[in-house]
Amino acid sequence: MSGSRLEQQLDFLRIADALKRVDRMTRLIQKAGETSRRENSAEHSWHMALMAMVLVEHANEPVDLVRVLQMVLIHDIVEIDAGDTFVYDAAAMIGKAEREEQAAERIFGQLPDDQQAELLALWHEFEARETPEAKFASALDRLAGMLPNAANDGGTWHEHSVTLEQVIRRNESIAIGSDVLWKHASEWVQAVHASGRIEAEVDRL
Amino acid sequence: MSGSRLEQQLDFLRIADALKRVDRMTRLIQKAGETSRRENSAEHSWHMALMAMVLVEHANEPVDLVRVLQMVLIHDIVEIDAGDTFVYDAAAMIGKAEREEQAAERIFGQLPDDQQAELLALWHEFEARETPEAKFASALDRLAGMLPNAANDGGTWHEHSVTLEQVIRRNESIAIGSDVLWKHASEWVQAVHASGRIEAEVDRL
Repeated sequence: MSGSRLEQQLDFLRIADALKRVDRMTRLIQKAGETSRRENSAEHSWHMALMAMVLVEHANEPVDLVRVLQMVLIHDIVEIDAGDTFVYDAAAMIGKAEREEQAAERIFGQLPDDQQAELLALWHEFEARETPEAKFASALDRLAGMLPNAANDGGTWHEHSVTLEQVIRRNESIAIGSDVLWKHASEWVQAVHASGRIEAEVDRL
Repeated sequence: MSGSRLEQQLDFLRIADALKRVDRMTRLIQKAGETSRRENSAEHSWHMALMAMVLVEHANEPVDLVRVLQMVLIHDIVEIDAGDTFVYDAAAMIGKAEREEQAAERIFGQLPDDQQAELLALWHEFEARETPEAKFASALDRLAGMLPNAANDGGTWHEHSVTLEQVIRRNESIAIGSDVLWKHASEWVQAVHASGRIEAEVDRL
């Protein structure tokens, strides 16, 4: 029993509520002396959408803001089924694409057919990182992880002993969406390194 | 010292992070047997933006989706300074407009002048509830409170002994933005009342 079009849309929105329960590694920006809680993927998606609004002028190519916002708002919904994967955990990354594809089929599949096709296409576009909108949205996803870590004196990079080179390799693709943002964010990384909170790989030899 | 344009934008985004710390009365949609935690205003803003994407066809008048999304994404940012006010608490509602106006000046004031003016205008437009976009965004704000309460067997309406009439008076303005959504949501209220989880005022005499 599929119910009316509106009931299908509301069912999707009820299921989507669970994204508020999916925690990421990243922590909230801390107050002095505090270890803040981890953020969840719903509030992360909000913060990324706000970043899109405020930083859109820094995209390398002109982008359609409404498509960037839509992409950002749905980009993590698959985590309701597939969970969040810590980007520096190589083992956990195995099978991620397949788990997320199944999740997308199930969750967007709650919607009426036309909206299911639209949101699935938008999510695939984000994942492929080929259009100007997807490149910029992807840059914001990485920037959103870097912003609190830089503000939190290394944050989860320090907490999980991630190296300087790992941080750079993981995030340098920000430049594909925005040279300006990568130039600025790479200065954060160097500052955190200079303060001794993330090590270069050579220091570990 | 105001810093570069990008630094001003990033300062705003760092300050905005604190919206993840502002809790609302509303709880997450519950699993069986659970009392879920309260939601915060950042994840609420995300959920509302997703609602805008999926339900835009039900707006009474044609709306510009990108403006609705932008309005929704910033509508609660003033709560970082002013706090969330429970809509059924008449005493707490006193002075709310002034507190929020000051908060808007301070928080949007972190941005470069052009963006400060743009976001302040957008927030005032939302608060005035006069344009098609603001009417629809306002309807979604109320719907976003009703959806979990209806799903949670009365939720915070039951928890705080809100009456049937209070729920209707508070939310019937959804119809100004969307007759379709109010028709549907008012059926939720009647169903919760029928199950005995919210009382009509006459039952209290």
